[in-house]
Amino acid sequence: MKKSSSNGVLFDCGRTERIGLPEAVFCPGKPRAILLELFERFQKRPVLFTRLEEEVFASLPLTLRRKYDYEAISRTAFAERLAHQTGRVAVVSAGSADAPVAREAARTLDFLGYGYTLYEDSGVAGIWRLNDKLSEINDHEAIIVVAGLDAALASVLGGLTPRPIVGVPTSVGYGLARGGESALASMLLSCAPGVAVMNIDNGYGAACAAARILRLLKG
Amino acid sequence: MKKSSSNGVLFDCGRTERIGLPEAVFCPGKPRAILLELFERFQKRPVLFTRLEEEVFASLPLTLRRKYDYEAISRTAFAERLAHQTGRVAVVSAGSADAPVAREAARTLDFLGYGYTLYEDSGVAGIWRLNDKLSEINDHEAIIVVAGLDAALASVLGGLTPRPIVGVPTSVGYGLARGGESALASMLLSCAPGVAVMNIDNGYGAACAAARILRLLKG
Amino acid sequence: MKKSSSNGVLFDCGRTERIGLPEAVFCPGKPRAILLELFERFQKRPVLFTRLEEEVFASLPLTLRRKYDYEAISRTAFAERLAHQTGRVAVVSAGSADAPVAREAARTLDFLGYGYTLYEDSGVAGIWRLNDKLSEINDHEAIIVVAGLDAALASVLGGLTPRPIVGVPTSVGYGLARGGESALASMLLSCAPGVAVMNIDNGYGAACAAARILRLLKG
Amino acid sequence: MKKSSSNGVLFDCGRTERIGLPEAVFCPGKPRAILLELFERFQKRPVLFTRLEEEVFASLPLTLRRKYDYEAISRTAFAERLAHQTGRVAVVSAGSADAPVAREAARTLDFLGYGYTLYEDSGVAGIWRLNDKLSEINDHEAIIVVAGLDAALASVLGGLTPRPIVGVPTSVGYGLARGGESALASMLLSCAPGVAVMNIDNGYGAACAAARILRLLKG
Amino acid sequence: MKKSSSNGVLFDCGRTERIGLPEAVFCPGKPRAILLELFERFQKRPVLFTRLEEEVFASLPLTLRRKYDYEAISRTAFAERLAHQTGRVAVVSAGSADAPVAREAARTLDFLGYGYTLYEDSGVAGIWRLNDKLSEINDHEAIIVVAGLDAALASVLGGLTPRPIVGVPTSVGYGLARGGESALASMLLSCAPGVAVMNIDNGYGAACAAARILRLLKG
Amino acid sequence: MKKSSSNGVLFDCGRTERIGLPEAVFCPGKPRAILLELFERFQKRPVLFTRLEEEVFASLPLTLRRKYDYEAISRTAFAERLAHQTGRVAVVSAGSADAPVAREAARTLDFLGYGYTLYEDSGVAGIWRLNDKLSEINDHEAIIVVAGLDAALASVLGGLTPRPIVGVPTSVGYGLARGGESALASMLLSCAPGVAVMNIDNGYGAACAAARILRLLKG
Amino acid sequence: MKKSSSNGVLFDCGRTERIGLPEAVFCPGKPRAILLELFERFQKRPVLFTRLEEEVFASLPLTLRRKYDYEAISRTAFAERLAHQTGRVAVVSAGSADAPVAREAARTLDFLGYGYTLYEDSGVAGIWRLNDKLSEINDHEAIIVVAGLDAALASVLGGLTPRPIVGVPTSVGYGLARGGESALASMLLSCAPGVAVMNIDNGYGAACAAARILRLLKG
Amino acid sequence: MKKSSSNGVLFDCGRTERIGLPEAVFCPGKPRAILLELFERFQKRPVLFTRLEEEVFASLPLTLRRKYDYEAISRTAFAERLAHQTGRVAVVSAGSADAPVAREAARTLDFLGYGYTLYEDSGVAGIWRLNDKLSEINDHEAIIVVAGLDAALASVLGGLTPRPIVGVPTSVGYGLARGGESALASMLLSCAPGVAVMNIDNGYGAACAAARILRLLKG
Repeated sequence: MKKSSSNGVLFDCGRTERIGLPEAVFCPGKPRAILLELFERFQKRPVLFTRLEEEVFASLPLTLRRKYDYEAISRTAFAERLAHQTGRVAVVSAGSADAPVAREAARTLDFLGYGYTLYEDSGVAGIWRLNDKLSEINDHEAIIVVAGLDAALASVLGGLTPRPIVGVPTSVGYGLARGGESALASMLLSCAPGVAVMNIDNGYGAACAAARILRLLKG
Repeated sequence: MKKSSSNGVLFDCGRTERIGLPEAVFCPGKPRAILLELFERFQKRPVLFTRLEEEVFASLPLTLRRKYDYEAISRTAFAERLAHQTGRVAVVSAGSADAPVAREAARTLDFLGYGYTLYEDSGVAGIWRLNDKLSEINDHEAIIVVAGLDAALASVLGGLTPRPIVGVPTSVGYGLARGGESALASMLLSCAPGVAVMNIDNGYGAACAAARILRLLKG
Repeated sequence: MKKSSSNGVLFDCGRTERIGLPEAVFCPGKPRAILLELFERFQKRPVLFTRLEEEVFASLPLTLRRKYDYEAISRTAFAERLAHQTGRVAVVSAGSADAPVAREAARTLDFLGYGYTLYEDSGVAGIWRLNDKLSEINDHEAIIVVAGLDAALASVLGGLTPRPIVGVPTSVGYGLARGGESALASMLLSCAPGVAVMNIDNGYGAACAAARILRLLKG
Repeated sequence: MKKSSSNGVLFDCGRTERIGLPEAVFCPGKPRAILLELFERFQKRPVLFTRLEEEVFASLPLTLRRKYDYEAISRTAFAERLAHQTGRVAVVSAGSADAPVAREAARTLDFLGYGYTLYEDSGVAGIWRLNDKLSEINDHEAIIVVAGLDAALASVLGGLTPRPIVGVPTSVGYGLARGGESALASMLLSCAPGVAVMNIDNGYGAACAAARILRLLKG
Repeated sequence: MKKSSSNGVLFDCGRTERIGLPEAVFCPGKPRAILLELFERFQKRPVLFTRLEEEVFASLPLTLRRKYDYEAISRTAFAERLAHQTGRVAVVSAGSADAPVAREAARTLDFLGYGYTLYEDSGVAGIWRLNDKLSEINDHEAIIVVAGLDAALASVLGGLTPRPIVGVPTSVGYGLARGGESALASMLLSCAPGVAVMNIDNGYGAACAAARILRLLKG
Repeated sequence: MKKSSSNGVLFDCGRTERIGLPEAVFCPGKPRAILLELFERFQKRPVLFTRLEEEVFASLPLTLRRKYDYEAISRTAFAERLAHQTGRVAVVSAGSADAPVAREAARTLDFLGYGYTLYEDSGVAGIWRLNDKLSEINDHEAIIVVAGLDAALASVLGGLTPRPIVGVPTSVGYGLARGGESALASMLLSCAPGVAVMNIDNGYGAACAAARILRLLKG
Repeated sequence: MKKSSSNGVLFDCGRTERIGLPEAVFCPGKPRAILLELFERFQKRPVLFTRLEEEVFASLPLTLRRKYDYEAISRTAFAERLAHQTGRVAVVSAGSADAPVAREAARTLDFLGYGYTLYEDSGVAGIWRLNDKLSEINDHEAIIVVAGLDAALASVLGGLTPRPIVGVPTSVGYGLARGGESALASMLLSCAPGVAVMNIDNGYGAACAAARILRLLKG
Repeated sequence: MKKSSSNGVLFDCGRTERIGLPEAVFCPGKPRAILLELFERFQKRPVLFTRLEEEVFASLPLTLRRKYDYEAISRTAFAERLAHQTGRVAVVSAGSADAPVAREAARTLDFLGYGYTLYEDSGVAGIWRLNDKLSEINDHEAIIVVAGLDAALASVLGGLTPRPIVGVPTSVGYGLARGGESALASMLLSCAPGVAVMNIDNGYGAACAAARILRLLKG
């Protein structure tokens, strides 16, 4: 009776060559032993750890922690980042509760070598906050919109800018918010044409989508 | 073995006294014989027929049709209307596909004795269309917002006016529109406080809610 | 690589002028540091804190807590309230489990300057409890109905009063209650015309909707 | 390669002995040839055909049609009925759109040998209609409640009678009615204890449930 | 500004006269102070406390606990029970995980004065377990079926007995069990006619439905 | 500006070598021109056409129709079948409304070269019908169970046979049947271990799954 | 006071300046009179008509039809197109049933001035079909992936290309396909990072998203 | 009349004879006393305990624990296993988060006497990982595919192997993953024919399905 001898986790090392995006480690659910092994292995390589809760990071040995740049709100860590790239992204979010997702997107952009500007608390209930910043936002080559609840921000912004827009619905809210499903539907139904959408709370994926876009700037 | 002898439809004649709103007839699913009887019975009383398709109305005898004021887009008919009341409602809709619902609301207001103005094609993808009309809209004592898809109009308008707002999500759209459920969720999750919401496509109900509100103006 | 320097939370200070309702702070998910900053900032201004759990409030410094009027069942706090306004609201709830939502509505009304009366435990299984109070309820200019489970109270009351009715479904119940979605559907489907509805458990929003209505009394 | 030779439909002939309810034929989806065969076979036996649309029945040969008692609103037919039984059922429905379901229940009771009285248009929006009839309704040994939309009738009646209540939600309504799912949830969540519920539009099943109950009267 | 002075919980004291079932107290979500008051008040009256977790009961004063008959698996307590009634119920459950619901039904029957027999672990995967007990089960005047997952037990039993059957789906299971919604659907779709169904996990309600039925035996 | 010149449909000709199952043509939605081309192309090759409605087949030229073996209830056609294989499948269905799905499974087995026996009308409401046939059913190497509504047949049969079981839920039923989703959930939740399940109404897929299994008999 | 003189449809003429995408007309639900007016008005301007069924287009006057370039599978028409732009898109679809959506995307690109290549029938069940074309696909600056059912194509392709990918789930399939919701979920959950997604069947929107991206190539 | 003397749990001892699979104990929700009794009873019989959390097992008496073979990731324990059988299964999983389910399947196979090989981290985002192992995988008589998120692995593998495939969707992921419902739908909709599917996370059931299949190898 043959059994699998593989204990560790296979990594997709050719991924950067194939798709231009390095492998990332989604931390929730991974046992401590495996996480520890991964942190050991990647201290000199550009690998992004996402959804890494503060207490989990704090439980790593100090010598290992020192090798990593950890940021608590975005719950991300990395030891090395990719080389600087051409192109900047405006990350626009609706409310302060959307911060973890908006900052996960921002940190991923930073890790991938792209510049970004964060525009938080830009929800449409006070639409003047958005108008004031519009021409500055349009100076970026791509826009990530992060919003929960009715996610009206995606539609309003989509009607005001010619830039590529990647929407990230968030799980903020209660009742009909349904864990972000209503915000997701709103973004997919945006009356402004050409708003592309990611999974709920997927700031990491939005940054990857933006990176795929900005790579066109290279020529 | 006793059986029910009642063939006809019992009407709630005391309703106007109790709640200030006369009975209405929701036409779909009612057999032709019963509809005919109801049209006969109400040719001199203020009763509103809703969701009355053009071909159904056209199939009534001409002498009966002449007694009724029928309007095809709103699919409504009535022989008598209520006395003129104080108060006017702005009915603001997002797109031309919302017209049947917006006009059902408008016609119901007309029937109940209230004034109204229709602002159609005011969706947020072209938000300038809304801004131009804002002060005029605010001259009305109440606002009915009719929108499908992401229903962002409710949030944007809710952040710009102090008036009572009644939202009516519509079943316009495909895919994630889910027959209006996504627009309903968006309105209930509006980031502007105090937007109250009706069932999907329920223009009639929105007008009744507005009428309950405007009655306060009497004293 | 430019980054956002903004750490704090932007507030929508012009909101009261635009829509007549001051900004509110929805507390869940906000980090303690940001909450603390907001409590500091708003100790002399009319801002309402909602969903503020007792243990969170208790963790604030005593000197700060003394500036605020906190009420535990409604989970609300404010340092200043708005000036007294004309108009009173009947807040009618079905069962004692609906108390947190009913009282959130009541406290918000109080904060906004409106009077209210609470009618709790008025569910339709014992419909006599409702009948006894009906004429008293009708003495209020608007009615907020708070109910979970089958939310039949909204329909029964809607058929007995001409007043504006704002329904708030609650997440009370198990199984098919589905976190309040069934109560929400019941209210939206009310066989009494003109019942307008808020998101599940949104007592705050119901009070805002009532305030938009009562403002009409000013003239 | 062996194949099944059976072309016809196997009937469960021992069912009446085992459970006291004869087999029934649910007509939709059955090919005309099979329906014809079943009508031939059951012209002298107590078998109930349900959901039999008028045009389908009209397409049968006249000689066969003459053997059957067909009723169009309930869409039911049978050639023989069971012997008269002790016990009567009040079938109470909310609106005229519920008639097909209410009458399917009534006709099934008739077929099974039980008496019934139909109380139609008894919705709670005009609750006086129900109150007037209450003591008469309570003279029946069991009650079937048929209602769509918010189905508040089940809760109101459940709070007023000690009789066994079987609720049948109907698919009446649009938008949040969700084909009867909201009415089903309302009935299952009834704040009156002991309301038992059937599948949406299942008037036939409600009558069977009532028959299981009334059989207790025999001793 | 008038406020409600009512602090306590109104009880529906006329309920037993109207519907033959005394009031019950659903404990979850009720603050300790209110529960304590209710336990004080009802130590000499027949009131049933349901969903009363062991640690909550244990936290009551010993003198009060001694007045009550508490049972931990069913999570029920009462100080007085109703007088003995004619009629017995078979409570049949599919698996040992259904025990809390099956026993809530059994305890409620006991409280209401009816006899019962529990048949646990009777799932259809081992259908012989059911067959052995069938004639004994049929000696009871009514049957409560308690099952989760695919709830096939309701259909199988429904095809084998002429007795009134009340089904209670349970929230047992994972994945597609969806908190009991799949079991609920299975019971409502039972291919055996006349199975009436309660809300998920509602053993209390099933016993009330059975009591409404058994009352017919009195005459 | 380059455009695609491909008008036709690419077929996966290597499929039989790779997975042992030939390509099939799912007919709905395919334009008549494309269907015609496919029927022309495959008149001498083993390709199965599924969901081919009678009127669509009848609209083909007679000379082409003569090349194909068409069966109306299963809505399948083929010109050539695969060589006879070892292994037989029992196709057991619950009711006569399941016939199109059961027979699609049977016809696909026939096309793939496997023997089968159809056991229709074997629903658990009359469980004796199943018991009588059990040893005969167990003489087949695999079992396909086809059932809608509560799909209890899968659990009952799964508890009585050691054979591989492939369940196919059907979209038969109304209300909570939800187009077969409830039957699907019931099968996935079967209390008998090891019942594997296909998509709703997917008789073709079940036969393919059985063929993958029976191929093991070859050695 | 009855108002609203506006009969026509307001168009958002400044849209091209603001967002670089001209207005489009979604035809379903628009009355013939309004469609006719729009076709008259836009015969010399770049406006795209989508979801225009063949029989609707055929019903227009011949003189008007001659002004428009209509294509039946994509259901699109336009009289003028935008000037040629830099950038080409690979439109890759899984099966022939996805053709209407894939071609709506392709035609929209054509209308907007972008080149495209269609790769149809590239589903992963025959993954060799995709591999053969990969380097050619990667020669395009952006990729639109169109797939229904399990939409596995998006993940497979996303793991093989560094290009921006816009996914369009289609409503192809039955049962669990749920009108495209399952394909939508699959795309949003793609294990390949950075796949952005549009509403179900929204080929038009995908082309707009691609156009927003390709505009970056200008400089 | 209080009854039910049965305290223990009835086991289905004839199950192995009937269906060839011994009884298993699903541990969650079972009280410690009952679990303890079951562990005592089955220390010399082949019974599998599933979903047995490490801390629960650790709480058993040491003498009892020593009798059992416990494995923590799969959360399974047994004292005796079945005799070795002919046939081996490839258990292929997509990511390391699927390990608990994949290993529950593997351990169940081991317990039932079948050989297996585990192929973990074989997701399609790096499809080369799968290709390298394909011929080795095809050397097994059956394949269990374990995957969450978009579960594209089932389709890709289904298009590459002629072996019987049993899919197990997992609850891995967030947002649209919906606790595994999206992965379940993807597997049921697999574009490769003949993939049979189990309930979400049901590794145990997949092994039972595989065992039903492999038993064919005996004769």
